[in-house]
Amino acid sequence: MSSIRQHLASLGMELPRPAVPVANYVPFRLVGELLFISGQLPLVDGKLAYTGQVNVGCTLEEARKAARICAINCIAQAAAALDDELERIVSVVKLTGYVNAAGGFVDHPKVVDGASALMTEAFGEAGRHARAAVGCSSLPLDAPVEVEAVFQVRS
Amino acid sequence: MSSIRQHLASLGMELPRPAVPVANYVPFRLVGELLFISGQLPLVDGKLAYTGQVNVGCTLEEARKAARICAINCIAQAAAALDDELERIVSVVKLTGYVNAAGGFVDHPKVVDGASALMTEAFGEAGRHARAAVGCSSLPLDAPVEVEAVFQVRS
Amino acid sequence: MSSIRQHLASLGMELPRPAVPVANYVPFRLVGELLFISGQLPLVDGKLAYTGQVNVGCTLEEARKAARICAINCIAQAAAALDDELERIVSVVKLTGYVNAAGGFVDHPKVVDGASALMTEAFGEAGRHARAAVGCSSLPLDAPVEVEAVFQVRS
Repeated sequence: MSSIRQHLASLGMELPRPAVPVANYVPFRLVGELLFISGQLPLVDGKLAYTGQVNVGCTLEEARKAARICAINCIAQAAAALDDELERIVSVVKLTGYVNAAGGFVDHPKVVDGASALMTEAFGEAGRHARAAVGCSSLPLDAPVEVEAVFQVRS
Repeated sequence: MSSIRQHLASLGMELPRPAVPVANYVPFRLVGELLFISGQLPLVDGKLAYTGQVNVGCTLEEARKAARICAINCIAQAAAALDDELERIVSVVKLTGYVNAAGGFVDHPKVVDGASALMTEAFGEAGRHARAAVGCSSLPLDAPVEVEAVFQVRS
Repeated sequence: MSSIRQHLASLGMELPRPAVPVANYVPFRLVGELLFISGQLPLVDGKLAYTGQVNVGCTLEEARKAARICAINCIAQAAAALDDELERIVSVVKLTGYVNAAGGFVDHPKVVDGASALMTEAFGEAGRHARAAVGCSSLPLDAPVEVEAVFQVRS
């Protein structure tokens, strides 16, 4: 078992089987040392753990937990891309956090922090990343949040 | 004529002259083997083929066709970037599909599939890509969808 | 003083101290020749220079000025990433402009042009970039616009 997977397990996080794309695309593409991960939803066993707009269909705290699940799913896709050799991950380069939020909502950073914190827990200093967090009028399957990731990997 | 252009023609798709940016930027930037294409709208001969929010100003099926046009426009920009040598495209790395959609809309993946399917038709296995699909409160010129692309190219 | 910093000063632009991330992430990540800058808000001395949805909380012209500030903040982060050696910037590769805009808004390109023009003023031809401009239902801290950037740098 890879040491990062072990480390995650010690934190009570088990990497799920990576989610199958909900449509006509692939979950990742590797170009040189950049690994691009498709936007991940807070799916657990193929079902959304949370749904709805933040502060309407779910609370801020639930959305934050949802973002954490998105990040775990990003790592699960990375594991699949790297034949489970998560040690090849040099750093988390960039996360984009899309938050399902109405006009006037201002706490996107708090939501996406759920994903960012997970990356730091998983990878330590190498898990610290550039980021954008924005508000979306709606998201696929009515998810409260979607996170896409770029990892730096060694060959 | 390049074989990919021929292949597209055989599918009834003719690459348009690439659209002029609607503002103060350039349609593409090449860095190493990554070709970044600016967000493309469903413009045909300089006019939007479809407008309005999905399910309001246009139907889901129209938005899907619009996404297909966005993807064709991405390829047209890539052709311009590569002096028409589309054979230099190694893979489609990533699409981001921005869907003009109200709160509660859930079918962004179906819309953006219009773009994804086109890429697979055009490039086969190499056309399969990572992707994010999200809902936007509004889009430039009231377009129903905007698609940006990253291609992997050889030098 | 770096010549680009001097050039900016001659244009009346002084690079601010780079903003501290508003949450749990880092302002930039450098991978090979790509420098990824986190989404920047129109912060001046730690406060938003403008707030609110375009055409509601602020005017189009104000949002355009806000986008200009976002771009300056992107350059300030790049300066921090490069130990103030802005000469290492080869080109501005890509801007993504997220505009806080209601349904029906169509002038995202005009808003984001505030950022794009600044890049061209700062870097000349090398400042011309690929771009996407989209509408967001809301943005962090109720900012009218957020801009993220990718720069190409030499080592």
